[in-house]
Amino acid sequence: MLEHLPDRVSVYEVSPRDGLQNEAAPIPLDGKKRLIEALILSGLTRIELTSFVSPRWVPQLADADELVRDVNAPEGVTLSALCPNAKGFERARAAGLAEIAVFMSASETHNKKNTNKSIDQSLSVFSEVVPPALEAGMRVRAYVSTVWGCPYEGEVDPKRALDISKRLLALGCYQVSLGDTIGVGTPLQTRRICRLFLDAVPAEKLALHFHDTRGTALANALVGVEMGFRDFDASVAGLGGCPYAPGAAGNLATEDLVYMLHGMGIETGIDLEKLIEAGRVAESVIGRRLPGKVHQAGLMRKRS
Amino acid sequence: MLEHLPDRVSVYEVSPRDGLQNEAAPIPLDGKKRLIEALILSGLTRIELTSFVSPRWVPQLADADELVRDVNAPEGVTLSALCPNAKGFERARAAGLAEIAVFMSASETHNKKNTNKSIDQSLSVFSEVVPPALEAGMRVRAYVSTVWGCPYEGEVDPKRALDISKRLLALGCYQVSLGDTIGVGTPLQTRRICRLFLDAVPAEKLALHFHDTRGTALANALVGVEMGFRDFDASVAGLGGCPYAPGAAGNLATEDLVYMLHGMGIETGIDLEKLIEAGRVAESVIGRRLPGKVHQAGLMRKRS
Repeated sequence: MLEHLPDRVSVYEVSPRDGLQNEAAPIPLDGKKRLIEALILSGLTRIELTSFVSPRWVPQLADADELVRDVNAPEGVTLSALCPNAKGFERARAAGLAEIAVFMSASETHNKKNTNKSIDQSLSVFSEVVPPALEAGMRVRAYVSTVWGCPYEGEVDPKRALDISKRLLALGCYQVSLGDTIGVGTPLQTRRICRLFLDAVPAEKLALHFHDTRGTALANALVGVEMGFRDFDASVAGLGGCPYAPGAAGNLATEDLVYMLHGMGIETGIDLEKLIEAGRVAESVIGRRLPGKVHQAGLMRKRS
Repeated sequence: MLEHLPDRVSVYEVSPRDGLQNEAAPIPLDGKKRLIEALILSGLTRIELTSFVSPRWVPQLADADELVRDVNAPEGVTLSALCPNAKGFERARAAGLAEIAVFMSASETHNKKNTNKSIDQSLSVFSEVVPPALEAGMRVRAYVSTVWGCPYEGEVDPKRALDISKRLLALGCYQVSLGDTIGVGTPLQTRRICRLFLDAVPAEKLALHFHDTRGTALANALVGVEMGFRDFDASVAGLGGCPYAPGAAGNLATEDLVYMLHGMGIETGIDLEKLIEAGRVAESVIGRRLPGKVHQAGLMRKRS
């Protein structure tokens, strides 16, 4: 076990989008910018800023256009945003983004509830988004959610997720991020899913996106690293999930992931002290405690 | 990875002792009994009830004698308590316990701060506790803490922990539980420590005791299971740690451990639904939210 660890892993930060979209009260634009600036300062080079969905559906992200225009990406930093459809893509392009992300579910019911489309309809919509984005010189990432389980259907056949992923890659997406959206995954299941995907798709075209709903996110990430995955999504301080059940249901905390990786000698390019500082900014911006463990405990300091 | 999983793992529950000893306000005796009864109902068969330390040092556990006399262990359930010295052992014997546990640190400074003894002094005290306990027909377990790191000394040489463990086993302890007391461990370090111990000591004489201070407890436990450990300490709902930093610094939550193990087809004999119920009792008894993830999220329920 742990005989085949990589030298480096890439972390894709989702807190400004996945973390803030569920907050009951929208966060002021200035707070979002402070969070993003702190994330960039920590050394994160891939950050998902927001989502170009309709403000009627997600009023928390109604400032997407302004936010993207206001944030400057330093050399080497890629900023992205979710785009559910052609209209979202046009807004992202107009705002000057170099990368966007499309998203859908591996389970029919969740896709319908989340996007009001069937899986085929989602793929059809993306076939009208991804090629124009590529022609405009942008990169497109894709999310496939509910790969480890669906809140409506229960178990999901990972072969369906693989089929969807292949179609998204065939459209021209550079990477598909596989999501344990409801945080039910356990390590053997993760190994099975990783193996299925790695047998069919090059590792660099894949990422893992764990939610820590039942505490297994980091153990699952460890399995993913060992199996050959090199790209992991995370959210600073575990920002995300339902604010009505603090501590539950959040994203894997970026600090916890980075702490584990650095502890195994795996580089991320991230300054963990500065990342913890970014988590404090997140907590200040959001106005409540956040569940990430390293966020709460900090690094070890010798006492006298 | 995960090619060599066992059919069964034994869970040693520490919440009544390790969980309650740090509470600012002592928990009423009746609340402790309700928690212990709920833990027994969940199928846990090894539970550490309390500590026979001086009430001057740990007033939270001043009711140890009465608690142990009041709790009845059903057939197949082993109850235990910490005993720091001969006086504690005599109290445990008088109260009718079949098992006790002794404890010390792998780092000199932590042992001194925690027990006011040098490591040699601790071993000397236990040489006057363990043999009489065995003669009285009791079993003795041992804890070695700070194996993954010391809050005063930083890194700890695991060879020192191994040497101490061998001496405790030579005294007649049936098992040594190795503790990441401050929750700094990462998986490669865990693999290194596990290998060192398993090369020198049979697995059944060893247990792992992780704190989830930095989120790595379950990932470390996964490494331990894979390496051959079959005994794990945990605390329901993550009870334990410092109540002034809720969510931080607690024990590995028993529900999270059991959820992961069951998800990999490893039996524990524990009914996870009833264990979650015991976590609710713990929360009610202690009067505050507890950090365990499965405790907060529950099992997956299909929505319609």
